[in-house]
Amino acid sequence: MSFHAAVFIAVSLDGFIARPDGAIDWLTERGERAGDTGYDEFMAAIDTVVLGRKTFEKVLTFGFWPYAGKQVEVLSTTLPTDVDERVIVHRTVDGLVETLNDRGAKRIYADGGRIVQTFLRAGLLNELTITTVPVLIGQGIPLFGALDADIALTHNATRTLNEGFVQSDYTIRR
Amino acid sequence: MSFHAAVFIAVSLDGFIARPDGAIDWLTERGERAGDTGYDEFMAAIDTVVLGRKTFEKVLTFGFWPYAGKQVEVLSTTLPTDVDERVIVHRTVDGLVETLNDRGAKRIYADGGRIVQTFLRAGLLNELTITTVPVLIGQGIPLFGALDADIALTHNATRTLNEGFVQSDYTIRR
Repeated sequence: MSFHAAVFIAVSLDGFIARPDGAIDWLTERGERAGDTGYDEFMAAIDTVVLGRKTFEKVLTFGFWPYAGKQVEVLSTTLPTDVDERVIVHRTVDGLVETLNDRGAKRIYADGGRIVQTFLRAGLLNELTITTVPVLIGQGIPLFGALDADIALTHNATRTLNEGFVQSDYTIRR
Repeated sequence: MSFHAAVFIAVSLDGFIARPDGAIDWLTERGERAGDTGYDEFMAAIDTVVLGRKTFEKVLTFGFWPYAGKQVEVLSTTLPTDVDERVIVHRTVDGLVETLNDRGAKRIYADGGRIVQTFLRAGLLNELTITTVPVLIGQGIPLFGALDADIALTHNATRTLNEGFVQSDYTIRR
């Protein structure tokens, strides 16, 4: 593959990206005071966003489309392929990757727990920027999932934002 | 309560303190090159260590007793009370806390996932120092568990050690 895939995501200290029902109130209520998270700079370099169904449906509730100007690919076995003209729905990881390569995607934003896990297991992920929010929420949708083998990472940098957010950059080792 | 309870623990980036069978090879093979983690300084201020059964049994495999000079309390419903003359076995959290207060314990090291979770849920924990190891192990014994409500923390400091270990100090908010 010729593309570079990165994750930019916030997690509770106990490793969840959302509550069981998808709520991220614990993040947004603190995030407003966290200062510049680097998200805009990260997004400026992205040409393609890859989402799972749940993250796609969550984004639809935001009231605005956060991926304007980006190619958006959704991986889902259930969504109708004509669900939204702003996205392309893929049924399989192989089909998704073929499309990404065919189109010459360069920098991909892999968003949502399921896509992160799928990309990790498939060896498709290059970098992770994880912002840890200083709260334990006890249960929810985990960022990470089961693996067939350990995945070693190189830690590149860590910075502290406002509100006690701690942001670390990692590169996946191959 | 008059004591102050702290956690000082290492986790994989995906939040595990050990593999499903208790193995911590992913930690020890990297930890030797991590440099000074601050553990000795942390331990110097501790008078009492509280462990669950699994952590106690893990420690017994180390070949040395890492808590020399400390009072060691083990919380377990199954261990014989005379299992080891170096520890006192408690059947309940209430019994443990009563003993800690009676003896005037000042600074407690709560070690192991189960004890951390028990102390968190019981409102007994004051501080957490979490050292994140740059590896995903996919499955294992989690540091955190279910909660009845969110627990907010104050982030105090973060430092980067060798080998890409990232260590953060948090205080539990009350």
